[in-house]
Amino acid sequence: MNLILLEERDRVDASSVTLADARATHLLKVLRVTTGQTVRVGWMDGPLGTGTVESVSDGRVSMRCVFEADAPPRPRVDVLLALPRPKVLRRLWAQFAALGVGQIILTNASRVERDYFDTHVLTEACYRPLLIEGLQQAQDTRVPLVSVHRQFRILVEDRLDDLFRTGVRLVADPGESTSIANALAGRDGRVLLAIGPEGGWNDFELRLLETRGFTPVGLGPRTLRVDTASVALLSHVHSSLV
Amino acid sequence: MNLILLEERDRVDASSVTLADARATHLLKVLRVTTGQTVRVGWMDGPLGTGTVESVSDGRVSMRCVFEADAPPRPRVDVLLALPRPKVLRRLWAQFAALGVGQIILTNASRVERDYFDTHVLTEACYRPLLIEGLQQAQDTRVPLVSVHRQFRILVEDRLDDLFRTGVRLVADPGESTSIANALAGRDGRVLLAIGPEGGWNDFELRLLETRGFTPVGLGPRTLRVDTASVALLSHVHSSLV
Repeated sequence: MNLILLEERDRVDASSVTLADARATHLLKVLRVTTGQTVRVGWMDGPLGTGTVESVSDGRVSMRCVFEADAPPRPRVDVLLALPRPKVLRRLWAQFAALGVGQIILTNASRVERDYFDTHVLTEACYRPLLIEGLQQAQDTRVPLVSVHRQFRILVEDRLDDLFRTGVRLVADPGESTSIANALAGRDGRVLLAIGPEGGWNDFELRLLETRGFTPVGLGPRTLRVDTASVALLSHVHSSLV
Repeated sequence: MNLILLEERDRVDASSVTLADARATHLLKVLRVTTGQTVRVGWMDGPLGTGTVESVSDGRVSMRCVFEADAPPRPRVDVLLALPRPKVLRRLWAQFAALGVGQIILTNASRVERDYFDTHVLTEACYRPLLIEGLQQAQDTRVPLVSVHRQFRILVEDRLDDLFRTGVRLVADPGESTSIANALAGRDGRVLLAIGPEGGWNDFELRLLETRGFTPVGLGPRTLRVDTASVALLSHVHSSLV
């Protein structure tokens, strides 16, 4: 935890917060904070800042906080992901937030099992703490937006232009030789990266994405699992944007 | 499973194999092979090839195989990894093999918990099937070499020049602005990538690595967990070598 993310319920007054949950435990047991010590804090979806420990007692930590003027910019990369199996998705939430994504658009696809949509890993109660874990790891405050779409075609044809208005659209395709760096060379603005299910998009889905402006990109000759590929792809997009 | 890896115990005669384990189940239940059908096969640490199903019965699959003349080259990237906690290491084995590594050198470091060395995840019985899973995913036959070193200094000062004779040495350092692409621009040969523990190498370790020829490289401003960082870093090294 390289940052303590704060929210409204932590607030005591205009500049003070008191923590009594896992964050307090982390401050006390891992960072072993004492009065007067400073820690990196951030306001959920707001600015980063510094917290000075004012008191420590009974597993509670009170801090006075000073924040920067502006919130960090929302990460410039959005992900359109064919819903993976719950075990994989559970691991991806924190990794996506740590790597940096503005929004996560989850969709059905021909090779997605229908019962994947019934998992509690798709509930905000499950994924929000995992997203926050990733943000605290990467020192970001911007909680990724999440939407879930059960109909691929309706998503791509009718909804996507609202969810992702302008920017570069890429679709990962294991057979493709164009690299992300080449596809993004000289491009500015936001990037939407589409990642298919294990086994890939089917021909209809890939054609529809290409019709809607997605450029196929690949990572090389080795076919990776969705979780490995997602991390690698997202990291490549970020590097190409720097 | 995009490739069925074969080994000596599968062999019936010079060109035939019979499978009766999880690979047979995969062929029968997932790929639903029938007589005459071909599947991609590979000989462990040997050449890739094609298997033609000759018979299917009682959960057993017999195939006649034809192999290419040469084994695929060993991946040009080696990893020197501070031993992560067992849960993380368990997930990394298959991902390393899928992304492509020639050898995995595991080491102690100041911020590695001593009891991490006691885990069964470090036994070949545990990791070999996971490495093979990753190879079958990525269609490679080259099983990464694995060595475990309990003394960082002895490894780096006395053993490393034997384990990694010539090539570029990189050490991942979250604070570093030099990218992997820049560090490897115009370089040829093998790459050894050192990845520290959660919390990083300490100053002594980082200095020792730099003394022994490791160039610090970074992935950008976001600090990632070791599992996420390992996948991203390794993927970047491979892309920079292509």
